[in-house]
Amino acid sequence: MTAVKKIVVLKGDYIGPEIMTAGLAVLDAATKDTTFSYELIDAPFGGDGIDRAGDPLPQATIDMLKQADAVLLSAIGGPKWDNASRRPEQGLLEMRSSLNLFANIRPTKVTQAQIDRSPLKPEYVENTDFVIVRELTSGAYFGRPRKLEAHQAIDTMYYSEKEVTRIMHKGFKMAQKRRQHVTIVDKSNVLATSKFWRKIANEVSKSYPDVTVDYYYVDAMTMAIMSKPATFDVVIIPNLFGDILSDEAAQITGSIGQIPSMSVGESGPNLYEPIHGSAPDIAGQGIANPISMVNTVAMMLMESFDEKRIANKMTQAVDYIIENHYVTPDMGGTMTTDEVTQKMVDYIKNDE
Amino acid sequence: MTAVKKIVVLKGDYIGPEIMTAGLAVLDAATKDTTFSYELIDAPFGGDGIDRAGDPLPQATIDMLKQADAVLLSAIGGPKWDNASRRPEQGLLEMRSSLNLFANIRPTKVTQAQIDRSPLKPEYVENTDFVIVRELTSGAYFGRPRKLEAHQAIDTMYYSEKEVTRIMHKGFKMAQKRRQHVTIVDKSNVLATSKFWRKIANEVSKSYPDVTVDYYYVDAMTMAIMSKPATFDVVIIPNLFGDILSDEAAQITGSIGQIPSMSVGESGPNLYEPIHGSAPDIAGQGIANPISMVNTVAMMLMESFDEKRIANKMTQAVDYIIENHYVTPDMGGTMTTDEVTQKMVDYIKNDE
Ligand SMILES: CC(C)[C@H](C(=O)O)[C@@H](O)C(=O)O
Ligand SMILES: CC(C)[C@H](C(=O)O)[C@@H](O)C(=O)O
Repeated sequence: MTAVKKIVVLKGDYIGPEIMTAGLAVLDAATKDTTFSYELIDAPFGGDGIDRAGDPLPQATIDMLKQADAVLLSAIGGPKWDNASRRPEQGLLEMRSSLNLFANIRPTKVTQAQIDRSPLKPEYVENTDFVIVRELTSGAYFGRPRKLEAHQAIDTMYYSEKEVTRIMHKGFKMAQKRRQHVTIVDKSNVLATSKFWRKIANEVSKSYPDVTVDYYYVDAMTMAIMSKPATFDVVIIPNLFGDILSDEAAQITGSIGQIPSMSVGESGPNLYEPIHGSAPDIAGQGIANPISMVNTVAMMLMESFDEKRIANKMTQAVDYIIENHYVTPDMGGTMTTDEVTQKMVDYIKNDE
Repeated sequence: MTAVKKIVVLKGDYIGPEIMTAGLAVLDAATKDTTFSYELIDAPFGGDGIDRAGDPLPQATIDMLKQADAVLLSAIGGPKWDNASRRPEQGLLEMRSSLNLFANIRPTKVTQAQIDRSPLKPEYVENTDFVIVRELTSGAYFGRPRKLEAHQAIDTMYYSEKEVTRIMHKGFKMAQKRRQHVTIVDKSNVLATSKFWRKIANEVSKSYPDVTVDYYYVDAMTMAIMSKPATFDVVIIPNLFGDILSDEAAQITGSIGQIPSMSVGESGPNLYEPIHGSAPDIAGQGIANPISMVNTVAMMLMESFDEKRIANKMTQAVDYIIENHYVTPDMGGTMTTDEVTQKMVDYIKNDE
């Protein structure tokens, strides 16, 4: 018998709990009669952390995270905590740091079945299939000093050699398993941290002679993501630029409600989460799109537990509901979150 | 008789001189038999500055700029000066700073005639007509310390109250003359400089009760530029984010080879330049698209000299060649830069 996997569940805010419930229901269906066994551990985090435990990242949650085999997060934050002394986002940044989750991985893929959802003309997006590897624990997000004073404010962008080197290796290794191409993004015609980024990229690239490399300034890259997205394979990008460009990349698919992401460290559990936010405007109405969370759980099964069969079952259930247009209003359907989820569960049951 | 206007011409690098020649030829045709009289003053700058005077921004050029009524720039930089101790871009940054050009203004407009050029589906871009107001002399571009060391690198993002306040007033005043709507972009859920930016935006907005305001995080804004560009009117954005998002905005028009921009200070000459780069790959072939430079010259006539009639003549010449498909290869045509320019000159002559 395999060991019981410990999955920490951070159910999130606003639509967070609604989609988390959906994702876990599909997980339950897909793991029935398999040898994969798991335990779900609920922990307070984000706005829910503030409400239940007085902090967006309570120490007890950190302790649980460090024991986990994987972490599932839905989406956090929202107006309820806008004036909190420590906001939900602060918890997310600190979690990335405490778990040393230095790489955020975001697939951007446009399938033939979904191509019509893109705001771009089909001839621009067809065959798009790239992965953004965003540095997640340094850069402008963590550099010090950071000062908010009465008459001025300061942030610091910082990168050390170790930080840049490890994210480069991460990206180049991923490219070796894909189409052997890496794109380095920076603003090295202006910023020192970007010159440094590009210099190390160039050095690390020498250890991967099988991988081709090109370099883009971040401004030019926003254009290229729209005008020739199919030319990219693995995109390695600093924290702040990665935040911006990964959302642009998501938008070209037209399917933000479907995209999962993962954050990984050198050891310890990976964190899996949909890329969208907590959507306060539609929370409580039962119409949140559960697809991203189902894809997120599937990504966890694949990447943390190597459970390819179960993961495939889940993503097939997603394909099934899309094909049959059993979808929520954001995708032009009329179903509720629960109805869509039930369709996926039924599909998996009948498939057996 | 009106005074002779002094226009400093920075002819630029690679395709720079090719399109500058075109822009000036159309200016010459459009001002014939008018009372507008001008003097063109050639000054070394950028790569051309390095080649002719040993520096991307020679002191003699600074002195000339300060005497000018307006400055025309084409595009600078390129591989030839990649290893220069001071690169062409450095000259541009220092020019912005010496002339105190704190606001960069970029129109993003999609006309019905040009809508098919957009990579976006028409239903997404129709009616797009907004202006980006980018802070240009502070933020991550100028903050100190900036350090590039062997094992680490640092940049500083900095904003003072004065810097943020003046760019806000600039943007709000522009909105009053347009559709009375301002969008503030920042990353205030993470950065101190962005919290500061948003706080001052909020204060300044109180002096403009006729202008509505909304706030976007920069990552969400990259999505909105693609999914609902027609909802924006004036977008006020910090330097680094403005660099990135203004290129994305240009890309949604599909007409990067046509867009002008201007940089303005509190007094002194404005700087006018196309938004595209120096295109080393097509330089010397005589096929560079002259439209952006003609539009840039027209923008100067309008904004610095209030010469509406002449400016309109020039933009009508642009409309004429587009309608008749007298265009360069980048726009699907077969004409050279000179042929397209001659068509515009002929159109203006015959129009009289
Ligand atoms: C919520 C916010 C702090 C976060 C970030 O900026 O990293 C989010 O935008 C993301 O991309 O995960
Ligand atoms: C050439 C470069 C320094 C410049 C910038 O980053 O400001 C350019 O991209 C621009 O937007 O004018």
